This record gives sequence, C-alpha cells and structure tokens, in this order.
Amino acid sequence: MKLSARNQLKGTVESVTEGAVNSIVAIKVGNDMVKANITSEAVRDLALEAGKEAMAIVKATNVMFAAGSEKIAGISTRNQICGKVVAVSEGAVNGHITVETAEGVRISGSITNEAIESLGLTVGSDAVALVKSTDVIVGVE
Amino acid sequence: MKLSARNQLKGTVESVTEGAVNSIVAIKVGNDMVKANITSEAVRDLALEAGKEAMAIVKATNVMFAAGSEKIAGISTRNQICGKVVAVSEGAVNGHITVETAEGVRISGSITNEAIESLGLTVGSDAVALVKSTDVIVGVE
Amino acid sequence: MKLSARNQLKGTVESVTEGAVNSIVAIKVGNDMVKANITSEAVRDLALEAGKEAMAIVKATNVMFAAGSEKIAGISTRNQICGKVVAVSEGAVNGHITVETAEGVRISGSITNEAIESLGLTVGSDAVALVKSTDVIVGVE
Repeated sequence: MKLSARNQLKGTVESVTEGAVNSIVAIKVGNDMVKANITSEAVRDLALEAGKEAMAIVKATNVMFAAGSEKIAGISTRNQICGKVVAVSEGAVNGHITVETAEGVRISGSITNEAIESLGLTVGSDAVALVKSTDVIVGVE
Repeated sequence: MKLSARNQLKGTVESVTEGAVNSIVAIKVGNDMVKANITSEAVRDLALEAGKEAMAIVKATNVMFAAGSEKIAGISTRNQICGKVVAVSEGAVNGHITVETAEGVRISGSITNEAIESLGLTVGSDAVALVKSTDVIVGVE
Repeated sequence: MKLSARNQLKGTVESVTEGAVNSIVAIKVGNDMVKANITSEAVRDLALEAGKEAMAIVKATNVMFAAGSEKIAGISTRNQICGKVVAVSEGAVNGHITVETAEGVRISGSITNEAIESLGLTVGSDAVALVKSTDVIVGVE
C-alpha cells in the first residue's frame, strides 16, 4: 500500500468488538496486540474478523514516546510497544524517533525536539511507543 | 472561522447516524462525501441534520496521501479525496502537500519529507488525500 | 509521567458517560472542563469515576488555535481553552504556540507557520486553544 503513513505493521486480526457506531479491532503484530478504534462501517466494508491478515497503519504524528523499558501504567492510551531507539533525527522544531522491538517490529514517530531532549532519547536507549486506538487505521490487501 | 486548521471545506450535511456516545455526520463537499465521527453531544449542540450547511474542518497533520488517481481499497479510513498535487514544500523534516480536486476543492496536509519522496509526489501528479473520520471536525455558521 | 506529549494537565474527574465502545470523561482543569473521548475499556482499567484525580494529556500536534478572547460557536470540537499567547516559535514549516489561561494552565500546540501568521498570533495576544475530545488521553497516578 503506497501511503504516506510511515507505519504499516503487518499482523493478524485477533478479535473484533462491535458497537453501534465504532468498533475495536485487535491485531496481533509480532508479540504485541495493537487495538484500532474504527467505524463499524469500516469493519463491515473490510470484512474484518478473527484470523484475517491486516495491517495496523499509524501516521508518524500520532506516535508518542516514553523513556524506559516498561509500559506506562494508568494511561488511557491502548497501545504501548516496547523496544529500543534505533534512529533519532532532529529538524528545526520537530524530530523523528524510530523504536524497534525485540521481534524487529519498527515504529516511527514525530515529536518535538524539546520532548526528545527532555526524555533523553538517543540511539540504543529503551523506549515505549504509544498510540491511541483511534489513531490506528486498518488496512487489508 | 479564524482557526489554525488549514482545511475548512464548505458543504451540506447529507446524513447523521447517531450512536450513544459518537455519531457519524456525512457532509457533501463538491462531489465528495466527507464523513465526520464526532460526539453525539456535538451533533445536538450544532443541531446537525440533513440539508444544513456545514464545514468539514481538518488539521493539516491529520491528512495522509497516496500516489495515484484511484481510491485505495481495503482501508478503514473513511475519507478519500482524489485530485492533483498543486503545491509541495519541504521543511527540515516535514513537508506540506496540497491536492486539488476537479471541482476545485483543496486539501492540504503535513507529511514527512521521506513520504513525499518515496511516493514521488510533485506538482501535477495524481494523488489521493485520506482523512480518518475521527479527524474531521464539523463547523456551522 | 515521562511522556513525549507536551500537555499534561492535572485535574479531577467530574463525570463519566459510558457507551458500549467509547466513553466521555470530563476532567476539571483549573476553571476549564476538558472532555476526553476514550474507550470504555480504558475507563474500567483506570477505574475512572467522579472525584478521582486525573491528567488530561494532549499531544502538541492535536492542538488548534483561534485568535481572540471568546470561544468559537458552532464547532464540534468539545474543548476550548481561552488565554493569552505566552510563547511563539517558528521552524521551517511548522511552529509552536503556548497559551496560558488566567489560572496559569498552559497548553502548547504545533501548527503551521502559515496559520501563525494568518491568525496574527504573537506573544500577548488573546487566543483560544481547541482540542478534539478524541485527542485527549487520560492518565492517573
């Protein structure tokens, strides 16, 4: 899929919880479960159901990061992917961070230079990538 | 409306599908249907109903792009607007793209320079602007 | 909470409105009410209920601004925080704005330089920070 979104993570649908307007689709990506909060209309259009191959697609601007090797407790954000920082670049105001999990899943995000510096994110450091479930798009082949 | 959001597309409400917490408002903009996933509280506050004039408002950071002249199949993103690239600018890390439809509707988005280059987006090329329904704000006069 | 999100506003949960998939959590921050549209699963995990201390967390890229001292009427965006601009910085394409309320609550956002200029946002000017309820993350200690 030729799309500007920087993160297109391949996985398999684990479950679908349908509501009247919105639904939650859980996609297993490597050892991580990525939850997408999408419209129930989209669930029907894509015929999403357990066992189907699907991609969890996330724009770089929708990724947040925390420093450290453990998931943050007490936060509403449904998706937390732990790994190590493998790339850092800083622009004028905003920068980019890429985190890679032990299984080789990579997730890139765009955050402020100020955040990169205050969290002390450098190549090799432990970090957690956080993504709200409403910011996960689901794609199928 | 003097608002920082770069995209304020005028249209007419085509339908409202209400849920307990969230609702889907479909707005006809030119020949395109733009769907907004907003709170049911907002639907009531703005008295949104079919036939009402409304604006679909989208922040530039919430617009994604795909190369080519056809909508992408198999993606949960509800809004896809096809047109031609009429402006490209690159900053240090992020750049801006503006796509214009055949009816003159313009939509601008901020994506990474990396994405601009890997998709080969240049002035005159065909492109599709994609926006998640949860990223569409609805405004009325 | 060491998180890249630039806005972490301390407050107290005022109410929780639960739906099947999503819920609305209203958090009192200073004199402002901030509404978060999060999954009902998250509401249960964080045991959110009226009276509980909580943080409203917002990424800088999810903040929009309007010029002036009054809330905008007729917009679906649920959160509007009025104050004065206390900081402006411009990068190559995008810039940052910080608004402070009369009670000292600060909210920072990343918008395009073009928007900063067209709205005439400078230090000392009145401005409204707008945040969609789906862009508010809830954190508890």
